[in-house]
Amino acid sequence: MDGEKNIPEFYIILVEPKYSGNIGAVARIMMNFDFENLYLINPVDIDDECYIRAVHADKILDNAIIYSSFEECIKKIDFLVATSSIESKKDKKHLRNSVILEKFYESIYEINGKIGLVFGREDYGLYNNEIALCDLMLKIPTSEKYQALNLSHSVGIILYSLFINKYSPKRLRTIGKIEKEKLFENIYLLLNEINYPEHKKENTKIMIKRILGRSLPSKWEYHTLMGIISRTLDNLNKK
Amino acid sequence: MDGEKNIPEFYIILVEPKYSGNIGAVARIMMNFDFENLYLINPVDIDDECYIRAVHADKILDNAIIYSSFEECIKKIDFLVATSSIESKKDKKHLRNSVILEKFYESIYEINGKIGLVFGREDYGLYNNEIALCDLMLKIPTSEKYQALNLSHSVGIILYSLFINKYSPKRLRTIGKIEKEKLFENIYLLLNEINYPEHKKENTKIMIKRILGRSLPSKWEYHTLMGIISRTLDNLNKK
Repeated sequence: MDGEKNIPEFYIILVEPKYSGNIGAVARIMMNFDFENLYLINPVDIDDECYIRAVHADKILDNAIIYSSFEECIKKIDFLVATSSIESKKDKKHLRNSVILEKFYESIYEINGKIGLVFGREDYGLYNNEIALCDLMLKIPTSEKYQALNLSHSVGIILYSLFINKYSPKRLRTIGKIEKEKLFENIYLLLNEINYPEHKKENTKIMIKRILGRSLPSKWEYHTLMGIISRTLDNLNKK
Repeated sequence: MDGEKNIPEFYIILVEPKYSGNIGAVARIMMNFDFENLYLINPVDIDDECYIRAVHADKILDNAIIYSSFEECIKKIDFLVATSSIESKKDKKHLRNSVILEKFYESIYEINGKIGLVFGREDYGLYNNEIALCDLMLKIPTSEKYQALNLSHSVGIILYSLFINKYSPKRLRTIGKIEKEKLFENIYLLLNEINYPEHKKENTKIMIKRILGRSLPSKWEYHTLMGIISRTLDNLNKK
């Protein structure tokens, strides 16, 4: 299992959500980022609006577990994370002392077992006694001017952050060393053909290397570029 | 002005949004992350539902500018970013060749001027002719199982990512719209001069746009590239 990443099991816990549309939007964004487990504490009715907003994530709604108390809900959860976009200004208010989202993934994947991500009410957020039961307070950074995020947006941004930090982007196949060298060779040939000033050549070569190094051409782009340059060289040699 | 940060001006552009609630949710998340400029192309009516979902971001809705065509809307924008959560599997489909969100901020803050973040319709996204007008294609990574994000979630995740990364160091000043167009014009001239196959021209032009969109040439790089191309054209015309 060398190098394999520990994937903890995440549970999205919504405390007394009041708008069914929000629950549906949460289900959808959960599916967008490969999360499955939804716990609801005293939610509003799961109605049509909720399913409409969930779009293809209806299974997540069907399988959601409803609890009537916070304590009951968290019984089998190993590690609880309270979430908030509002941070206490006072250091002393340890209850709301928080970890910032950008740093969260650095430690959360170290944890084994069931992790609950707890989201509060649309209006009052989480109560202090609920926060006190959590192991960690997680803060999403926002503008000072308007800190209150929509519920499903809070969920979405946190799940995105967790997703990309385990996601290794499979990128387009970029060109290899040999192709890169061939491409440069042809560009240098072109510089010769057009009598490019000798004293500028070295710098220009490096510049082209940098531009292509930043854009990382794909195989197909490589072949197209080579086509343009060869054709230009042919046309120059015809004269 | 030493050490001062270049802050480009961002414009959130929604193309033909069909649900007013989505527009309101976009306005709210914009305010959460300090974005102000909202452009709407042929939107649904801005109704009460829209303002309810915007909560405290009503000013952003009041100041939103409505356009009746994509071309009209983007006239004064210097750099256009098409957004998508769906990526083409094929290398060849350059139209959708994309930069991934985690890497986006590394280059976007190098651009001066007005940057448009373009979001497509809730059902069809952006059309190919709209994507072709954009300089860069930005992808939000998602689960393979369900890639389509809700519109306001796409906006929210991208704005969050820009918000938390806005303190990245400033680099070389990149070229503006006029220089970009001049460079493309000269490359197209070159394609004509070398009798580049007519049926390939359109795709190749877009490909070149993408490569340069990814590498963001500096002013100096621009002048050097222009020099090489002009010199090549001169030499071709001498024959």
